[in-house]
Amino acid sequence: MHIHSTVVSRLLFRTHGLYKLLKYHHVTSRMGDLDSTREGLALSQVLDAIHSFAPIELAASWDNVGMLIEPTKSKLITHTLITNDLTEDVMQEAIDLNADLIISYHPPIFSPLKSITTRTWKERIASTCIENKIALYSPHTSFDSVKGGLNDWLAGAFDLETCKPIEAGVNPENGFGRLCTLKVPVSTADAVTIVKQRTNLPHVRLARARRQDDMITSIAVCAGSGSSVLKGVRADLYITGEMLHHDILDAIHLGANVILTNHSDSERGFLKLFAIKLRQLLGESVKVSLSLLDTDPLKTV
Amino acid sequence: MHIHSTVVSRLLFRTHGLYKLLKYHHVTSRMGDLDSTREGLALSQVLDAIHSFAPIELAASWDNVGMLIEPTKSKLITHTLITNDLTEDVMQEAIDLNADLIISYHPPIFSPLKSITTRTWKERIASTCIENKIALYSPHTSFDSVKGGLNDWLAGAFDLETCKPIEAGVNPENGFGRLCTLKVPVSTADAVTIVKQRTNLPHVRLARARRQDDMITSIAVCAGSGSSVLKGVRADLYITGEMLHHDILDAIHLGANVILTNHSDSERGFLKLFAIKLRQLLGESVKVSLSLLDTDPLKTV
Amino acid sequence: MHIHSTVVSRLLFRTHGLYKLLKYHHVTSRMGDLDSTREGLALSQVLDAIHSFAPIELAASWDNVGMLIEPTKSKLITHTLITNDLTEDVMQEAIDLNADLIISYHPPIFSPLKSITTRTWKERIASTCIENKIALYSPHTSFDSVKGGLNDWLAGAFDLETCKPIEAGVNPENGFGRLCTLKVPVSTADAVTIVKQRTNLPHVRLARARRQDDMITSIAVCAGSGSSVLKGVRADLYITGEMLHHDILDAIHLGANVILTNHSDSERGFLKLFAIKLRQLLGESVKVSLSLLDTDPLKTV
Amino acid sequence: MHIHSTVVSRLLFRTHGLYKLLKYHHVTSRMGDLDSTREGLALSQVLDAIHSFAPIELAASWDNVGMLIEPTKSKLITHTLITNDLTEDVMQEAIDLNADLIISYHPPIFSPLKSITTRTWKERIASTCIENKIALYSPHTSFDSVKGGLNDWLAGAFDLETCKPIEAGVNPENGFGRLCTLKVPVSTADAVTIVKQRTNLPHVRLARARRQDDMITSIAVCAGSGSSVLKGVRADLYITGEMLHHDILDAIHLGANVILTNHSDSERGFLKLFAIKLRQLLGESVKVSLSLLDTDPLKTV
Amino acid sequence: MHIHSTVVSRLLFRTHGLYKLLKYHHVTSRMGDLDSTREGLALSQVLDAIHSFAPIELAASWDNVGMLIEPTKSKLITHTLITNDLTEDVMQEAIDLNADLIISYHPPIFSPLKSITTRTWKERIASTCIENKIALYSPHTSFDSVKGGLNDWLAGAFDLETCKPIEAGVNPENGFGRLCTLKVPVSTADAVTIVKQRTNLPHVRLARARRQDDMITSIAVCAGSGSSVLKGVRADLYITGEMLHHDILDAIHLGANVILTNHSDSERGFLKLFAIKLRQLLGESVKVSLSLLDTDPLKTV
Amino acid sequence: MHIHSTVVSRLLFRTHGLYKLLKYHHVTSRMGDLDSTREGLALSQVLDAIHSFAPIELAASWDNVGMLIEPTKSKLITHTLITNDLTEDVMQEAIDLNADLIISYHPPIFSPLKSITTRTWKERIASTCIENKIALYSPHTSFDSVKGGLNDWLAGAFDLETCKPIEAGVNPENGFGRLCTLKVPVSTADAVTIVKQRTNLPHVRLARARRQDDMITSIAVCAGSGSSVLKGVRADLYITGEMLHHDILDAIHLGANVILTNHSDSERGFLKLFAIKLRQLLGESVKVSLSLLDTDPLKTV
Repeated sequence: MHIHSTVVSRLLFRTHGLYKLLKYHHVTSRMGDLDSTREGLALSQVLDAIHSFAPIELAASWDNVGMLIEPTKSKLITHTLITNDLTEDVMQEAIDLNADLIISYHPPIFSPLKSITTRTWKERIASTCIENKIALYSPHTSFDSVKGGLNDWLAGAFDLETCKPIEAGVNPENGFGRLCTLKVPVSTADAVTIVKQRTNLPHVRLARARRQDDMITSIAVCAGSGSSVLKGVRADLYITGEMLHHDILDAIHLGANVILTNHSDSERGFLKLFAIKLRQLLGESVKVSLSLLDTDPLKTV
Repeated sequence: MHIHSTVVSRLLFRTHGLYKLLKYHHVTSRMGDLDSTREGLALSQVLDAIHSFAPIELAASWDNVGMLIEPTKSKLITHTLITNDLTEDVMQEAIDLNADLIISYHPPIFSPLKSITTRTWKERIASTCIENKIALYSPHTSFDSVKGGLNDWLAGAFDLETCKPIEAGVNPENGFGRLCTLKVPVSTADAVTIVKQRTNLPHVRLARARRQDDMITSIAVCAGSGSSVLKGVRADLYITGEMLHHDILDAIHLGANVILTNHSDSERGFLKLFAIKLRQLLGESVKVSLSLLDTDPLKTV
Repeated sequence: MHIHSTVVSRLLFRTHGLYKLLKYHHVTSRMGDLDSTREGLALSQVLDAIHSFAPIELAASWDNVGMLIEPTKSKLITHTLITNDLTEDVMQEAIDLNADLIISYHPPIFSPLKSITTRTWKERIASTCIENKIALYSPHTSFDSVKGGLNDWLAGAFDLETCKPIEAGVNPENGFGRLCTLKVPVSTADAVTIVKQRTNLPHVRLARARRQDDMITSIAVCAGSGSSVLKGVRADLYITGEMLHHDILDAIHLGANVILTNHSDSERGFLKLFAIKLRQLLGESVKVSLSLLDTDPLKTV
Repeated sequence: MHIHSTVVSRLLFRTHGLYKLLKYHHVTSRMGDLDSTREGLALSQVLDAIHSFAPIELAASWDNVGMLIEPTKSKLITHTLITNDLTEDVMQEAIDLNADLIISYHPPIFSPLKSITTRTWKERIASTCIENKIALYSPHTSFDSVKGGLNDWLAGAFDLETCKPIEAGVNPENGFGRLCTLKVPVSTADAVTIVKQRTNLPHVRLARARRQDDMITSIAVCAGSGSSVLKGVRADLYITGEMLHHDILDAIHLGANVILTNHSDSERGFLKLFAIKLRQLLGESVKVSLSLLDTDPLKTV
Repeated sequence: MHIHSTVVSRLLFRTHGLYKLLKYHHVTSRMGDLDSTREGLALSQVLDAIHSFAPIELAASWDNVGMLIEPTKSKLITHTLITNDLTEDVMQEAIDLNADLIISYHPPIFSPLKSITTRTWKERIASTCIENKIALYSPHTSFDSVKGGLNDWLAGAFDLETCKPIEAGVNPENGFGRLCTLKVPVSTADAVTIVKQRTNLPHVRLARARRQDDMITSIAVCAGSGSSVLKGVRADLYITGEMLHHDILDAIHLGANVILTNHSDSERGFLKLFAIKLRQLLGESVKVSLSLLDTDPLKTV
Repeated sequence: MHIHSTVVSRLLFRTHGLYKLLKYHHVTSRMGDLDSTREGLALSQVLDAIHSFAPIELAASWDNVGMLIEPTKSKLITHTLITNDLTEDVMQEAIDLNADLIISYHPPIFSPLKSITTRTWKERIASTCIENKIALYSPHTSFDSVKGGLNDWLAGAFDLETCKPIEAGVNPENGFGRLCTLKVPVSTADAVTIVKQRTNLPHVRLARARRQDDMITSIAVCAGSGSSVLKGVRADLYITGEMLHHDILDAIHLGANVILTNHSDSERGFLKLFAIKLRQLLGESVKVSLSLLDTDPLKTV
């Protein structure tokens, strides 16, 4: 091992204010919440809190974000469950927890629905939410784009000198992907270790560029599926969740190493920080839980 | 008045077997149903009954028909409400009646939904159905196309010599629109009377072609919005629910008179027949009601 | 009746300068023109007059406006016939009147022509104009858009507090549709009466929104076929010529009542004002007639 | 000169029955028609005659053929003028000749017309035809495709062993372009002479393929603009009216010489044969003239 | 471990005739080829041999297969190098080996080239081939589709009862993907072991469906990137090289486990069999090597 | 002859600085280059020289210009061959001359290549360049657009009063086509003579507009294929290389005479001036030759 784990864990707490919160807050297990009788807040107040962190306007134009499901009768939100993917397992978890709002990073409705039956799992998710009067919000690319969001969390695993969006948004601080330079070059092996620590994974996949020098001085980061954002970018290392074979061949011939974590493993870790932020914003009236069943479907075996 | 009302009412009972049912059945008011404890049938059995009348394959390829909303937990269907349009008034009616299946001729979900919130009435209809565990089926163009369906009902107001679809479907008996010849020519004024009686309307709108002879020997019929089906068809009279100005000018310059009833007024009357048919098919286990609040939004004032 | 007809007729003369002309001019019947030997003006001079009222640039980009037919040999214009639709009846009227210029609000050539034969009425109109050396001008959406044009005429039936285009044009005064607030709220029944008086119709069609309060404080107006312009607009009342069933359902679920007159009945009344304006602009050299045969093809019966 | 002109002129009279007519008929100058009082035939009879030679169904799907202009009042056709292009000069010629039907090989209306004014020559042609009550028919690709049509005439300049369409039509005899083998190979210089004689031109343009052997044993022919039809065809010589530079480079690298005549010079000669055919079909009732002013706009200087 | 490795290795030699060859042939290392003076065969003869195994017509219509690079001067083929991907490392290997034909399963030219410079690795591959007079052939989807090709090799890791293409080709034996039933159900853990053995990988990635029963009775296989072919297929297990996150979620909600190997790891093993087949077909005249440097770019670390 | 040849040849040397070079430099025949041992320059230096005359940014967005072929190993450029079209004859010439850079005005790769075999001449050109380590540069529309480029050379045959691009580029001096006024009107016959002298052709093709006055006071020029650039331009004379029949008919009905030279004859003459310029820019280190075999494929016979 070429890097002291203390260095790595220090990095974890350094960048983007938001992360500093980790020093003061435990990510309280939902089980630890003895008092189930919260006061609750109006849905609009919860939305205000989310948008104070990441305005919905930051999302990509092709995306489907914001309130996706909303019961017809308004009620106070007392328990919010945060998840990366709203699978049927997580759906059941929300019901068991009596959650009344799910914040699912990935939008469970993306292809528009022509029916709401039991034929597909997406339709079942939609009707189960409504039947259980659970509202559903999806931030998706507004969290990718926002300063201090997913991409900054992922890039922030490294000790960065400079960092800016690859595709700038309306203002230069936000946008998709991050291209960063490191304060001190690290070896590829160290970079692998840093990414594993940040994403809490025992394995990642690595493609090596065809070049002598193994030291990394610049990284290009895109949480999730990075092919389109990373295409043609000049950096020593690409870090993303998933990338198809022919795009990887392009990357390594352009001189970039590539580390892949699995799509959602490059995203999920940020939600812990967001949960802390949201608790801070909402106060005691609303309980904020992180899904315990939300996990990347893929395991290295 | 140029036609004896007895002739007209006789016509009402003549064509297409189905209509004969009217002789034997009263359209029982829902209020008359004293016994609310029906046994119920599985949803699949109700669907089999509907499809024995009009297979779903008869619908147009662009249409969105069949089961549109289905609760996640199956239950027996004990009360079916039939409506032409599922407005929010009719939605409330279904709840008040404890209906567990709505058959809405027009599909309440047509443009696919990207969210299911309270922002639009279509979204509210969808979530209200699910919240109240009411399934939703829409036959739409399968009822237009089927022999003995909406178009045959509308054309059957006249004493017909021959009648065939304008756009033939998979077999020559089904298809969109009807082009028919009359056994005995009628005047335009009589045709207006016949259409008013069939649709139970005090007023219709008439556009007259620019020609001497007022006698009608052939009619082209399209329930609903007939412009695309009727375009260019040679007939003395077009009968449809609605048609835009420039299409009407084309029609009258082609020598066709045009009678417009309002879109749903050209469709709704058929549902009374379908209700009788469905009661016959389902027997005592399921109550079948016709909406009392379903009505064309437009009134001539 | 909930409104004094004197109030209504006063409204008719109030708004938009142009309308004041009605106080000083009779709409002279063509029959009253005893002197048929007018001096005439060059076509370009007549166009200058029309464009001083409504520049052609105000028309929508998809429209086909301006000079549509022009004989190869120029001659002086001595008699202009104004019509809403150039039907074959109005075409014959123009020939009988020895008109040398027709101003048809709707463009008789809209779909471009691949031939000019007797097969369709549009082709017959084109060749009949040319054979009779009658020029043809169509203003269409330039009259919709212009301040003081069709939409202002239709909205001006009410006593307006404020009024602005729904889709603003190049300058904020012009554009498509009008969204207006009323000085004094009126009941829906009164609104129906006002629209009937403005359009001189015995019947209109009304769709009522599902709401308690019957008082109208804001109106959205679009002469002709208003669906695309009115879609989603927030107002107590939509007034337009024609609107399809599913758009009406959207409107009433959005809380708007809808009054429909028939497409051209929402437009034709303005032409009387335009005729007065044009006479004023052209002086004695050119006779200006309004078609007596131009009428909406639809009659409520 | 490598070919006896007698051989060439013999060829002119050999192929495709139609051409044999030249032995019996003079192409009578219009000036020779002393008797202007013909009986005339109904337009439909003239069309029947044209279609007995080349049914309209043979035309390409993208083409605009058949009756393009037709006066509103039918009259007998007494004088038909045949032209390759209906220029404004030929239009004046038709007026001077009192022609009541123009057969223009190229359709004067191809891009559909949005107006019929004096702004473009195509619009002026349309209105001048109508003002002068002259009907207009265009056969275009139905004459290209038909056996014995333009392409067979052009290919028939050579002594052919076999000949078949390059793009077969509904039946194998018709279609676009002709690929033919020669009974006896000819030199490229002789081929040039043969084409000049057939088209009656002092100059043509020749591109030579890069190959040793100068003898031509196969020809690919496309009257008019041959690029798309001839693309990739294997033949020793391409003969067409016009071809763009980059297509010529493709052809000569594929081993084909190319002879270009000018677009309409590859077509016009056929019309003389068609005029004879049409006279035979119509008899004495209709005079058939060939335009004297119709000529390819390009001259080699 | 639930499966005896002897069973697995037996499977390796069982299915599809082709595989039996492994019993008789060693995959000779290129280093073992002491005699470098082969006679050689014409390129056309080598192509005949390849096509006798997999006709080029089996490839997908969107693909770019067959001869992609061919030197201008023909020479005999004496040494063929087989690779899955023609990376720049493998390119150098081909030069070092004096190969005159590369068979690259993936087409190195897929997006058509607008230039052939040193700017991109694809352009460098193209010019390096030509500079070194090395021909390049790519079979791609013709090898996927053919019976006994990549998909049969991958599916053949299991003891199959039945097996047929998911998307049938021109004849029912060929086509894309394979849907197979197993003779004896295996556990998911055993299936993982079988796939690892077939692909010679220490790790694969597994996504588990949400269901009780762990036994696999049906498999759906698609070498390479299987999302579009496998979408919606009903099977207990999907086996493919790579699949994006949202497609994996769809699969596991449809009840299918998913094993991913990495794109080219699901393909490369077949090339060993193909090399043996090709040696048999070409005989002693042409040396056939498998690339030693060709490897999936991704390694699990 | 209506113009003194001294006037014409004077014009040849007048406009655009560049042309003045002709006074001082002979276009040295390649045969005159006795010393074949040039020092050579890096490719990038040669490109800098070309771009100092015409920056690549001036090219049209649809074009394929710049370095099209580049050997993988850089070497010094000692001999550059300039040609209008890179035919297979010119390709052989380049090999015979040991050229290491070809500047081909027309891009030999325009449709992107899916393979580089011997099947088409474009593919053969590409592989022959690479096999012979000859780089290939194409300026195309950057030379059309640049001030002092092809169009200015062609227009400069006349004594011009004013001259500006028809389609202005990024700055008003550059762009496509030229619209110019003459200092002194010339007759059409004189214009033909001037064009013949400038292009060194014995014949050109002329289409005459239908108008009385023969004097030319304005010209519209587009080297190559001018239809799209010249469409609708008002000028007395169009000068271009090729134009299709129907565009010529449009031009002459718009009042413009048209002179056609053949596509490349309207371009090639400029390359002599460019060769002189390039020699001046590159100095003695690089030999610059003009192809002797490059010629328009079409000859008037």
